[in-house]
Amino acid sequence: MTEVVIAGIGQTEVGEHWDIGLRDLAYAAIHDAIQDAGGLKPQSLFVGNMLAPNLSRQAHVGALLADYAGLLGIEAVTVEAAGASGGAALRQGYLAVASGFVDVALVVGVEKFTDKVGGEVDEALATTADSDFESVQGMTPAAQAALLMKRYMHEYQVPADGFAGFALTSHANGAGNKSAMYRKAIKPEVYAKAEMVSDPLNMFDMAPNVDGAAALVLTRRELLPSSFKNPLVKIAGSASASGTLALHDRKDMLFFETSHLSAGKAMKQVGMTLDGIDFFEYHDVFSIFAALQLEAVGFAVKGSGWKLAADGSIGLKGTIPCATMGGMKARGFPGGAAGVYQAVEAATQLRGQAGANQVADARFGLIQSLGGPASTAVSHILQKLDS
Amino acid sequence: MTEVVIAGIGQTEVGEHWDIGLRDLAYAAIHDAIQDAGGLKPQSLFVGNMLAPNLSRQAHVGALLADYAGLLGIEAVTVEAAGASGGAALRQGYLAVASGFVDVALVVGVEKFTDKVGGEVDEALATTADSDFESVQGMTPAAQAALLMKRYMHEYQVPADGFAGFALTSHANGAGNKSAMYRKAIKPEVYAKAEMVSDPLNMFDMAPNVDGAAALVLTRRELLPSSFKNPLVKIAGSASASGTLALHDRKDMLFFETSHLSAGKAMKQVGMTLDGIDFFEYHDVFSIFAALQLEAVGFAVKGSGWKLAADGSIGLKGTIPCATMGGMKARGFPGGAAGVYQAVEAATQLRGQAGANQVADARFGLIQSLGGPASTAVSHILQKLDS
Repeated sequence: MTEVVIAGIGQTEVGEHWDIGLRDLAYAAIHDAIQDAGGLKPQSLFVGNMLAPNLSRQAHVGALLADYAGLLGIEAVTVEAAGASGGAALRQGYLAVASGFVDVALVVGVEKFTDKVGGEVDEALATTADSDFESVQGMTPAAQAALLMKRYMHEYQVPADGFAGFALTSHANGAGNKSAMYRKAIKPEVYAKAEMVSDPLNMFDMAPNVDGAAALVLTRRELLPSSFKNPLVKIAGSASASGTLALHDRKDMLFFETSHLSAGKAMKQVGMTLDGIDFFEYHDVFSIFAALQLEAVGFAVKGSGWKLAADGSIGLKGTIPCATMGGMKARGFPGGAAGVYQAVEAATQLRGQAGANQVADARFGLIQSLGGPASTAVSHILQKLDS
Repeated sequence: MTEVVIAGIGQTEVGEHWDIGLRDLAYAAIHDAIQDAGGLKPQSLFVGNMLAPNLSRQAHVGALLADYAGLLGIEAVTVEAAGASGGAALRQGYLAVASGFVDVALVVGVEKFTDKVGGEVDEALATTADSDFESVQGMTPAAQAALLMKRYMHEYQVPADGFAGFALTSHANGAGNKSAMYRKAIKPEVYAKAEMVSDPLNMFDMAPNVDGAAALVLTRRELLPSSFKNPLVKIAGSASASGTLALHDRKDMLFFETSHLSAGKAMKQVGMTLDGIDFFEYHDVFSIFAALQLEAVGFAVKGSGWKLAADGSIGLKGTIPCATMGGMKARGFPGGAAGVYQAVEAATQLRGQAGANQVADARFGLIQSLGGPASTAVSHILQKLDS
């Protein structure tokens, strides 16, 4: 059986990188990942990017980054599935290596949000919704999330501070991640006083759209040189599913079908159940997404995902640690790079290098990258291998 | 040995589809391809699209099309490499099926240019060049091509009408393709009188940016039902290479390194030389690109690619028929769909269904999809299989 392993990881600090362009930001992560992989030379580059053609007026990012990283001539392509672009790029890299067509693949996620002002960013983000039926009406991702959240709170009688636990957990974990944008734990009072964005969704129910790049070097286990020293992390499961872009097209708005489907497929590939998952990197661009993912994947029954945040179950010592390095909320949401950050963070956990944030005895991590309100969901299961 | 075959093909007429949106256009091609494939049900969708996030304000096209085509739940992703997006999507679909991870893949190329006026299209197209060093200066793809053409004409002393043969050939072939935008042969006088776009590049040295969608259903040969009736076409070779976006970063502007590399790799996979190639679908968005591809692939020595057009060698009965269904010039250039059109047309030739445009005894076709001035080149070799 072919074993695809993560040989190298790299990431930049997430934040407002006004002094660094798209290519330099990506290069920083690429450099670190290749160095971490002991200099393995990639033959293919898969870039996860969401909005560069709009926000940086730069399409064709694959070839651009291959050249800039000193990899001129290799295969290079951009993979886009809105916010799931990073997860989708990882999956294409995984397929290329697992198939044997490519020996070493480089997966890079990169996004630059903060060179533009809020209105431009919102307009660009709205391209990920259904342009003919949603964004044309002024619907933005935050508005979609607010609709879901309002319906959820009504349906399940969730109190006003019901979602606070998601932000509290993420910020507590962000404090231990030197690549995170926000490294300070917050108190419940801060959540309670947060400004409203789109009622009932407040500033702490959504992640900041910021700049960042993360990279992975993938190869097959047997191709690693004998001198290779990093603890081994394998991509044990990989699956992707698509759903409707528009919320109104769904039978049940409050069930993330794609999240359920892709996680289920990935677990089936590994031959495991949720019991074996030691931590879960969800796609908490909005706290409501985190709640719905916990339910769709199966960690909570419908309507009770928020309780796992409220009662501490998702904490580092809880029953299912989530957003272990700060998640989208505190690490920050770097668009198409987000899914690659998840993989870098999960690999860090499984290598046992997560420092104060280490999940004890972590052997299996589930990561899930969403595009839109789970219009796309890409799930991967990462596994610690015995050396 | 795994054999990936093209089980179904579909394409819309290329032109100004003001009455059809992005999703409807794509669906028309998807419908025909799936029907042509006898109803095979895809598990994965790879969309080649170049500019929808800009021109249609629609990102996340993968999930959108999967849903609209009645394929809700399947894996769906957009693949972008500027003008090579279609070729790159085909390659991802090929990898997915060849690897065994996916049994049936749907590859769709779609682009809508004509809902926008020229200036907006030019601005969007310029995102495919190097934004920090080229497009920021006002450089558009047409300007890049004009620079190359001028240098080429100077270097090799090419006469003013030296490139006419490319347009004449494409238009002659477009006449026999009912999906082509221009179906009328043109005379040398028309080329000679054409308006200048960017000296020395005239209206007939560039392809029209228009709307279109094309689709392919890929599977492994052994999965075809016994009732399957279409003549069999196999994807025998597949390779992609990247180069610099900016022209000024190249050692030799007049050699399309990526074109050379990717075609060479694809032929090596098949274990064949150029002698075995019966026709070549080049990426003639600009006549100078066609000339440089003929040289880079090896059909002509450096500086003499244009002569193959001038002396009729690229005609349907020539030594190396090119743009056999009209190419980008006469079929039209539907952006990210262009590479998929190439595959549909090559499959039509290899099935022996090209009508008046049939290349006699065609067994191997080389198709090459370019992004920018060959900043990306994706090459595929399609092969007719004996039934």
